[in-house]
Amino acid sequence: MCGIVGIVDAGGVSFPLYYALYALQHRGQESAGITTFDGERLHKCKDQGLVADIFNADILKELKGDVGVGHVRYPTTGSKIPENIQPFNFTFQNKKISVAHNGNLTNTTELRKKFEDRGQIFCTSTDTEVIGNIIVDELRKTDKMEDAVLSCMKNLEGSYSVVIMINDKIYAFRDPLGIRPLCIGKTREGYIVCSETVAIDALNGELIRDVKPGEMLCISSEGVKCTQITEASSHGHCIFEYIYFARADSVIDGRLVYDVRRRIGESLHQEAPVDADIISPVPDSGIAHATGYSESSGIPYREGLIKNRYMGRTFIMPNQEARENAVRIKLNPVKQHLNSKSVVLVDDSIVRGTTSRRIIDIVKDAGAREVHMRIGSPPIKAPCYLGVDMPTREELIASKKTNDEVCEQIGATSLHHVSLESLIKATGIPNDDLCVGCITGEYPLCIKGEKGCPRHIEYVAGTFQSDLKDF
Amino acid sequence: MCGIVGIVDAGGVSFPLYYALYALQHRGQESAGITTFDGERLHKCKDQGLVADIFNADILKELKGDVGVGHVRYPTTGSKIPENIQPFNFTFQNKKISVAHNGNLTNTTELRKKFEDRGQIFCTSTDTEVIGNIIVDELRKTDKMEDAVLSCMKNLEGSYSVVIMINDKIYAFRDPLGIRPLCIGKTREGYIVCSETVAIDALNGELIRDVKPGEMLCISSEGVKCTQITEASSHGHCIFEYIYFARADSVIDGRLVYDVRRRIGESLHQEAPVDADIISPVPDSGIAHATGYSESSGIPYREGLIKNRYMGRTFIMPNQEARENAVRIKLNPVKQHLNSKSVVLVDDSIVRGTTSRRIIDIVKDAGAREVHMRIGSPPIKAPCYLGVDMPTREELIASKKTNDEVCEQIGATSLHHVSLESLIKATGIPNDDLCVGCITGEYPLCIKGEKGCPRHIEYVAGTFQSDLKDF
Amino acid sequence: MCGIVGIVDAGGVSFPLYYALYALQHRGQESAGITTFDGERLHKCKDQGLVADIFNADILKELKGDVGVGHVRYPTTGSKIPENIQPFNFTFQNKKISVAHNGNLTNTTELRKKFEDRGQIFCTSTDTEVIGNIIVDELRKTDKMEDAVLSCMKNLEGSYSVVIMINDKIYAFRDPLGIRPLCIGKTREGYIVCSETVAIDALNGELIRDVKPGEMLCISSEGVKCTQITEASSHGHCIFEYIYFARADSVIDGRLVYDVRRRIGESLHQEAPVDADIISPVPDSGIAHATGYSESSGIPYREGLIKNRYMGRTFIMPNQEARENAVRIKLNPVKQHLNSKSVVLVDDSIVRGTTSRRIIDIVKDAGAREVHMRIGSPPIKAPCYLGVDMPTREELIASKKTNDEVCEQIGATSLHHVSLESLIKATGIPNDDLCVGCITGEYPLCIKGEKGCPRHIEYVAGTFQSDLKDF
Amino acid sequence: MCGIVGIVDAGGVSFPLYYALYALQHRGQESAGITTFDGERLHKCKDQGLVADIFNADILKELKGDVGVGHVRYPTTGSKIPENIQPFNFTFQNKKISVAHNGNLTNTTELRKKFEDRGQIFCTSTDTEVIGNIIVDELRKTDKMEDAVLSCMKNLEGSYSVVIMINDKIYAFRDPLGIRPLCIGKTREGYIVCSETVAIDALNGELIRDVKPGEMLCISSEGVKCTQITEASSHGHCIFEYIYFARADSVIDGRLVYDVRRRIGESLHQEAPVDADIISPVPDSGIAHATGYSESSGIPYREGLIKNRYMGRTFIMPNQEARENAVRIKLNPVKQHLNSKSVVLVDDSIVRGTTSRRIIDIVKDAGAREVHMRIGSPPIKAPCYLGVDMPTREELIASKKTNDEVCEQIGATSLHHVSLESLIKATGIPNDDLCVGCITGEYPLCIKGEKGCPRHIEYVAGTFQSDLKDF
Repeated sequence: MCGIVGIVDAGGVSFPLYYALYALQHRGQESAGITTFDGERLHKCKDQGLVADIFNADILKELKGDVGVGHVRYPTTGSKIPENIQPFNFTFQNKKISVAHNGNLTNTTELRKKFEDRGQIFCTSTDTEVIGNIIVDELRKTDKMEDAVLSCMKNLEGSYSVVIMINDKIYAFRDPLGIRPLCIGKTREGYIVCSETVAIDALNGELIRDVKPGEMLCISSEGVKCTQITEASSHGHCIFEYIYFARADSVIDGRLVYDVRRRIGESLHQEAPVDADIISPVPDSGIAHATGYSESSGIPYREGLIKNRYMGRTFIMPNQEARENAVRIKLNPVKQHLNSKSVVLVDDSIVRGTTSRRIIDIVKDAGAREVHMRIGSPPIKAPCYLGVDMPTREELIASKKTNDEVCEQIGATSLHHVSLESLIKATGIPNDDLCVGCITGEYPLCIKGEKGCPRHIEYVAGTFQSDLKDF
Repeated sequence: MCGIVGIVDAGGVSFPLYYALYALQHRGQESAGITTFDGERLHKCKDQGLVADIFNADILKELKGDVGVGHVRYPTTGSKIPENIQPFNFTFQNKKISVAHNGNLTNTTELRKKFEDRGQIFCTSTDTEVIGNIIVDELRKTDKMEDAVLSCMKNLEGSYSVVIMINDKIYAFRDPLGIRPLCIGKTREGYIVCSETVAIDALNGELIRDVKPGEMLCISSEGVKCTQITEASSHGHCIFEYIYFARADSVIDGRLVYDVRRRIGESLHQEAPVDADIISPVPDSGIAHATGYSESSGIPYREGLIKNRYMGRTFIMPNQEARENAVRIKLNPVKQHLNSKSVVLVDDSIVRGTTSRRIIDIVKDAGAREVHMRIGSPPIKAPCYLGVDMPTREELIASKKTNDEVCEQIGATSLHHVSLESLIKATGIPNDDLCVGCITGEYPLCIKGEKGCPRHIEYVAGTFQSDLKDF
Repeated sequence: MCGIVGIVDAGGVSFPLYYALYALQHRGQESAGITTFDGERLHKCKDQGLVADIFNADILKELKGDVGVGHVRYPTTGSKIPENIQPFNFTFQNKKISVAHNGNLTNTTELRKKFEDRGQIFCTSTDTEVIGNIIVDELRKTDKMEDAVLSCMKNLEGSYSVVIMINDKIYAFRDPLGIRPLCIGKTREGYIVCSETVAIDALNGELIRDVKPGEMLCISSEGVKCTQITEASSHGHCIFEYIYFARADSVIDGRLVYDVRRRIGESLHQEAPVDADIISPVPDSGIAHATGYSESSGIPYREGLIKNRYMGRTFIMPNQEARENAVRIKLNPVKQHLNSKSVVLVDDSIVRGTTSRRIIDIVKDAGAREVHMRIGSPPIKAPCYLGVDMPTREELIASKKTNDEVCEQIGATSLHHVSLESLIKATGIPNDDLCVGCITGEYPLCIKGEKGCPRHIEYVAGTFQSDLKDF
Repeated sequence: MCGIVGIVDAGGVSFPLYYALYALQHRGQESAGITTFDGERLHKCKDQGLVADIFNADILKELKGDVGVGHVRYPTTGSKIPENIQPFNFTFQNKKISVAHNGNLTNTTELRKKFEDRGQIFCTSTDTEVIGNIIVDELRKTDKMEDAVLSCMKNLEGSYSVVIMINDKIYAFRDPLGIRPLCIGKTREGYIVCSETVAIDALNGELIRDVKPGEMLCISSEGVKCTQITEASSHGHCIFEYIYFARADSVIDGRLVYDVRRRIGESLHQEAPVDADIISPVPDSGIAHATGYSESSGIPYREGLIKNRYMGRTFIMPNQEARENAVRIKLNPVKQHLNSKSVVLVDDSIVRGTTSRRIIDIVKDAGAREVHMRIGSPPIKAPCYLGVDMPTREELIASKKTNDEVCEQIGATSLHHVSLESLIKATGIPNDDLCVGCITGEYPLCIKGEKGCPRHIEYVAGTFQSDLKDF
């Protein structure tokens, strides 16, 4: 998973990009990068690590210009290779170009082959370089970005929210199903397009709206021009953004993530009530769900586990035994809240089950009489091909075990996952407009070896256009 | 403020010290250090920065030995000077010695002069070096640590929880009033003495008890020996540890800090109820208080501000205006929770008032109809001379303004501080055993130019001794 | 200017590459890189800085494989851009490829345009990426490197010694005129191809011979195969390698550079004798020349200036005045050797004249009665388009001033440059086989706006082949 | 060994100190430090590594003030301990003090004991802290530096050139025998006192004279005051400074080191002539000697070994075999100069013999017919107790083997060391005023277990005083 941002602002963009990436840091902690354009050349800085570690005031001052893009990257295969760190920068016929991509393509190999057959080399192993090539290949023919993005939407399979800077303009587009989020906001002297609304908030900007699935925006010092490139029969918004990935204070496709999670918590109580002493979240991911459960049930919300706020990615463990204790150092049980108590423990999801097992052990070691596990998602049974870093089916505990077996394995007194129906209801999004592939194994587009009900895409490039003049 | 730890453990101490300092990181983020003794020589590493940034596996492996001390330091005057970073290491007559100190002495100048008069030089500007000198000066006469600590307690004025390693033994003592916390726990193959119980939890150890005011412990591979050095008429536990400083999941002098804060929140509701829509904490410091207010009032607990979990100390701001926006990047308002709502905003304390003003601005910008500020401490009116980094009286907003004036200045709809009576009741500690100097301006020991009711100290060194054999 | 190296050795190549780059460090101090291939994937490390600063034992251990290439880069325009640091790594149809290039192309723009016209993007602004593209473009048609290198030699204009690794083979070729050096040697369990023989010496290897102009080598675990791709009517070895650039202990095209310089020094004496007290070099570049002058004249060789061996590139100067003093800190005059003496000061060349002026000032300040400047090259009057980082004609002091004017400007008592005739004689290379463009303004290939006598190139690819079996 | 410097200059001292330490870098590469005083407080920076790596413009700008001291340290036991890095800074009765020391004390243990007996702690394991204590101990009684330095000279045994800053004054003194060098020079707006004249040259300053043995200087904005503290019957200047340690372009006690070495080279020819083809130095230490031999014999001076100018301390070698090859990477043989030749190889000294063996191997591998080793010092047979980092007697090859045995072991055709008589004559210093302990085993002061003829010291403090007004 990744976070992307593009900003055009007459007051300079490096500091705003930095603040925006700070706000999107949860979408990727492995590496980060910023590229700006000063009217003549690109200025670039990207490296492994957190935004706070990579940039400083001197570097930001060197990143000159009123246009720029930024990226944070989640640790996935290949991400440690320096050339794979985004944005991906290149030149083409005197155009200076920088691309940032959030999502995952499922036909990269075929696309790369097509280019290699005509003698093209690849400098990285990213999907992003493939996207850059498709765009450039079309641009050289018609020099129209509408055509280039249309070519992307015809050729790319998978999920892609893309921000691309070509000299002093930023283009942003979202795949026809709108799988990954993307939204646009107004800044003091310009515009920002970014993965989540929290990046707009960080600039004290104003959310305009989500970028529509299949839509392309062109942002320049002149304003924003919107062009609908495709119309899909229905969409495929990722359910996991609501369950876990997005920040609780983001608004995605019109829904505050915090409230979706709180409503899931309410459903968890209604579906599986317990006469417990306290409701405790697994921090931080279960907090919103737990407040919903607490409110609905009237049982006190009390933190049974306190998270160490200073745990970095660099936490060192000398051996396996220590690694198992790491959860204990990260999450400290509050014995006085747990001892002899019946506890409802609320978390967002169970993936492999190992972390849940360790957390329940800690809660029981602290004296809890009963540990009722309540999970804010249905069982995760299938892999994600569209950008969330999920393990294989074999590693997903729910893909092979019944609810009772999982309950026993993680050591809970009882276990309940929210129903898919309640989950969808909590999002307020029609069933058909969501991708719930990781839950049902059915995906909104063709994936080799998997079932699904692919959406129908109509190519309408250029027929609808508008300006975002009123902002 | 600082955090200190000493460990004797047959399995090696560098990794346990590192985990313990991680758990105590909230007590000091400016610098950190570890010193160990391997039977022959000291191994040392200390630097500016966070525990996670200073240490790595290679360094920890070099810190050999089964005895060691550690320290984290809060940014106070002089702390950026490398030689002031603790532990303070030195040698004396073939003894290898390392001292870590939490607290603040009020008679350092006089004590330094005494030593200088006989020709002594000072390598640092810390209180810790003075403590080291007093101990050594007595040791050379009688070679008994009981006498050395007695000399400390007779000569040192102020607060001091001290851990000192002399070759393979660790001595720990707490000033006669017990101003700063200090506790002892059992680890797998040894013992840990530390500022807060969370450090014991981090090692999966077991809390034995607090070190008593005026008590000295000697920890070695043979076990723990306890000696009472002084008896005070009453004590002076710092109230601010409960209000703000200590971690919520620590147990200090028998009280879970989280529960003290929750009870304060209940009192805030009983003293100043509001018919509001939501109760929101200022994260993270107001969370426990806010749950108490919510439970007592029945008004939903809902996060109106979400804290960015990645904000480091290195956050960069190009200018004053940006600095004012920093609070906005750190705390993002959840507009949907605040818009048109009457909000009870709960925080632990108001010091200068500037942060409160900015937070209330943010909440109101997000559309809140009313912002009722509820504060988990009485007005802070006087400076702290005993280790908490408070501003001067001039900078303390409550030292010169009435409650109404403060309310207006910070822009709240209403403002209420918990009463001192309720606060003390929430701690469950007798009035006489607390230091509430920052609230009342009366201190439990003589401070030049300030009022107070100094405790009577009786020197009883060596009369009571015991072993902690049963652990 | 740059230094390149490729090694195939059954004992692993990362340490040998590191030693070789150390030996070639004088050819480029701006950045360095190593790429190795372990039979499956590339391992890469490259960064700005000196070889000693970029690599360490841990990094070298990660650079696995028995095949690899390395590069050091001189500070030229664009070199500070991280993506321009060589080797240039890319993939093509499952081939892992890494290219290192020494030289300069004069038709890069046209070549890039050709590729861009068919939709190709460029990730760097280096000539090296262009070379990679030409090779791959031919490879996909015939899959024969002979054809790919032939295509290079037909299309590339300028100077290029190239080492390219394609999976487990290394190909090396030198432009038809042999402008930049390239040689091959035997290592313990394999072969090394590199810019200068000193890199072979560093591995305790044995020089086999120079790579011939227009020749391509293929080095693998099976041995070395040589193919002559072009035959030129005559060559164009860079005279400046002998004058200044190459290490004195290198043997280029059969000539020990040290001896060429010593013979130049002898000619300087014969052409312009002085009845001086001492002969002093400007260290280190004038040492060999000065020994030749001393031997020929019988006047004692004595160091009048001692070079500070610790001057790094990071030497700091607070202002312009200090910058002018920098020469003084780098070169310390030995007053006792200079005071009241007539000094012959020998240096390799004069470019802008500013450094010579400062050095002569220093020598005169130290009391020298006369300073006779003797220069190991004719006046440098024209720019270099073929890889040496020369200033423009306007900045070259000799392009606009007579010998007497230069002598006066630098403040010398007398000034003599070695004659072109003597210089060429000292190299022992036929006039026609040298490029002396920077001296005469006539180049051995077509350069827009410049005069020259381009060599005739015959393409003979594949007609002569041989194995280097006997090594 | 170490290098020290103190500067008082109205134009600021941090940059001059930095330049001076650069010039003295050869005296110590392990660590470096600068302390300045701005009229109120000390500014400090010290770390492990080279001067170029530790300091940068930002740091130097922070080192404010017109008074300061600096230090470079050679790798000796304990030097890697951060607190041992000099200058040693401390405070005493509102005085800010910083000490830098070059030399070695032989009675440190006794002196430390004396202070410990009265309760003093030690923060470092350096001689420097002991010196600081002695000075302060006397100062508090009389507040006169003459007395404090007299106390040093009465109590300290060994070698010591010391620079000490006390607030805005710098005091410099040299032990009664003048074992280590120390000199004073005039800068633009002040004065510099430093280990070698090259540091004065680096500031474009003017050498005034050497500090006399037993003399103390007081340097302030008012000028320089000189006080003779002791008079010794004769001195003990270290012979090894002339043989190897000092820079060739330094003038010590009136003698240009380069010329001393050149005269040694002449003596080597006169004592042991060879009918050889070339004279080659082992660079860089044998260069001056070799020019002397070449001039005296008329045999051409030609570099048979070229030193890699980029070898840093960080050169990496994977294993023992590689370590043995390191000499080969550092020193590259010029085969064309050596093959079939009879070579006179000139070096400054032989210590363990291992390096000589490897160098001779290299020269013979390069084809030399005969290798006649000529050494610019007599055999080194005894350890140094006075500051030069020599190995023990067991490791000194000449302490147990005859000249013929050494010759055979290092593989030379013939071996000759210069005679002690010629060496002393080359220095031009009377025999009695030199320390030649490492050659004869007889030292100019009492060293337990060693022979010697200690000088008689007379304490004359204060009787001779003068101002250096004329500079």
